[in-house]
Amino acid sequence: MSHYRVSVVGVTGAVGQVMLECLETRNFPVGELIPLASSRSAGKKITFKGTEYTIQDLAEHTFLKGEIVLSSAGAKITRSFREKAIQAGAVIIDNTSAFRMEEGVPLVVPEVNEEEIFKHAGLIANPNCCAAILTVAIWPLYKLSRIRRMVVSTYQSASGAGAAAMHELELQTREILEGKPLTKKALPHQLAFNVYSHNAAIEANGYNGEENKVVAETQKIFGDPDLRISATCIRVPVMRAHSESVNIEFERPVSVEEARQAIRTGSGVSLVDESEKNLFPMPIEASGRDDVLVGRIRIDPSIPDGRGMDVFISGDQLRKGAALNAVQIAEVLIKK
Amino acid sequence: MSHYRVSVVGVTGAVGQVMLECLETRNFPVGELIPLASSRSAGKKITFKGTEYTIQDLAEHTFLKGEIVLSSAGAKITRSFREKAIQAGAVIIDNTSAFRMEEGVPLVVPEVNEEEIFKHAGLIANPNCCAAILTVAIWPLYKLSRIRRMVVSTYQSASGAGAAAMHELELQTREILEGKPLTKKALPHQLAFNVYSHNAAIEANGYNGEENKVVAETQKIFGDPDLRISATCIRVPVMRAHSESVNIEFERPVSVEEARQAIRTGSGVSLVDESEKNLFPMPIEASGRDDVLVGRIRIDPSIPDGRGMDVFISGDQLRKGAALNAVQIAEVLIKK
Repeated sequence: MSHYRVSVVGVTGAVGQVMLECLETRNFPVGELIPLASSRSAGKKITFKGTEYTIQDLAEHTFLKGEIVLSSAGAKITRSFREKAIQAGAVIIDNTSAFRMEEGVPLVVPEVNEEEIFKHAGLIANPNCCAAILTVAIWPLYKLSRIRRMVVSTYQSASGAGAAAMHELELQTREILEGKPLTKKALPHQLAFNVYSHNAAIEANGYNGEENKVVAETQKIFGDPDLRISATCIRVPVMRAHSESVNIEFERPVSVEEARQAIRTGSGVSLVDESEKNLFPMPIEASGRDDVLVGRIRIDPSIPDGRGMDVFISGDQLRKGAALNAVQIAEVLIKK
Repeated sequence: MSHYRVSVVGVTGAVGQVMLECLETRNFPVGELIPLASSRSAGKKITFKGTEYTIQDLAEHTFLKGEIVLSSAGAKITRSFREKAIQAGAVIIDNTSAFRMEEGVPLVVPEVNEEEIFKHAGLIANPNCCAAILTVAIWPLYKLSRIRRMVVSTYQSASGAGAAAMHELELQTREILEGKPLTKKALPHQLAFNVYSHNAAIEANGYNGEENKVVAETQKIFGDPDLRISATCIRVPVMRAHSESVNIEFERPVSVEEARQAIRTGSGVSLVDESEKNLFPMPIEASGRDDVLVGRIRIDPSIPDGRGMDVFISGDQLRKGAALNAVQIAEVLIKK
């Protein structure tokens, strides 16, 4: 088995850390690991498979042919090295939103559209966390019947705003319990004991950037630009798993039992749908798990002819929503 | 101005306490206040308008003609005194779900259907908290155009499960921050740093009791049994205000500006819709306020012809969702 040179850009971030975790636990054939970050973090140490590595300055890194670059450091950073890395023959798996909708850039959730990976021209985009969790969960149902429309409301964790936001949620919670003034540096509003509309800028159509990503990326991943989607993205005081309430209008009727069976046998999903115990997907259960949890499957009679369905899903934002999906893309990439 | 004998059943509960608060701050003409509870709480003291009152045992209470009974002690309790109170000529404003859908029982949100109040036969039902907050927020839009269908996902606070649940959310949060074992007495699951599907029992149609209430009660309050609604009810770690993501299909196109104007001029609602500041309804802002906050108003292009709209709302669960609405019903009642 070949071993690969793998560089991780933004290795100190929440996603970067989980990328290392996924590479290790999934036993990705890493020949050489190069942890990369800005000059600010260069020189710091990280541990991978029990060995200590020194973080190197991205600006001084030399990309090589066949190198797999897992990047989660933001659009500006990826832009800064994209051409250089591609010209060297490296392949970038990029977690930023900058290139996802670019013509010729595959946007991939391997359980849905892994064949797109091989169409890459040096860069493969990893989807938005909500889109990744949504598409892997809904794909088994989409395969039962094309979906005409989805209405999605999210319950998004602090991790989506980075490690600093996770720390700040904990800090804010302590501050409120202790009656102290509230810190708002990483988060735009109080998140402890509160929920708020995702703070991505509101765009011309009235939806925020996060919502527009969910729509456009889901259409691209499903290869169905006519799939109509309405999304409302809300931040909730949860650490690291996103949940989504999804209302589905199918093209033809789909029964609850068909849907359950599709989830039971689907890739990357686990059915959690125990009505008697009132046990359904919860973010604390999804945290640290690879599979996205799917449940509360029921026929929505407000859509005629049995073509409506409601489901509730929870998936680890740092794993399937980011790092795991990127590593899965790398796994497919090296299969060929 | 007449003054009224007002009894408050379940006065020690979270809703009972806010009922006293609303009676006081809204200067309801209380001639005689009778705090009532089970024999367990009888003898305890409560304060109303600076005066101390002794809680009396509901079982030994004598109802009188013209007495207004504000009850939030559960269906069994209301059933135990309903006939006796009505025969004595008292009027019950009941906060339980037991009688809301009963023929001949008005189910009222005064901003929407106050005229129903006068059709009562001794009992007027106060709606489910989510339905009250939803109907007062959406009614100004419904008046612009009939609504064909709504898809509602809720973000419900601990207060909806009572005072014990609010305390337990705080306790669980402390326990998690301190790494201690988790208390789960009032709440069915971990609520701190988690969200879960509302634990009302799952009914035959696959929806839980809470969701079915939102649907049936909204239809009854709007007087529109053909209004199609899909609801997903989710508990979030917030203390006392519910939020709801609402996707609307109108019968005719409604513009964002029309909708905003309707909310600006509507009763019981406040527009919070500042895209530039990314400032929208939040439960911490709705807490302790009478108005339900409405914002994130945008045209949903996944519904054709400009007939789709998304909004996000937050309302105090204990006020508009319960106690305030009950006191408002009493205010209408005494106007005649």
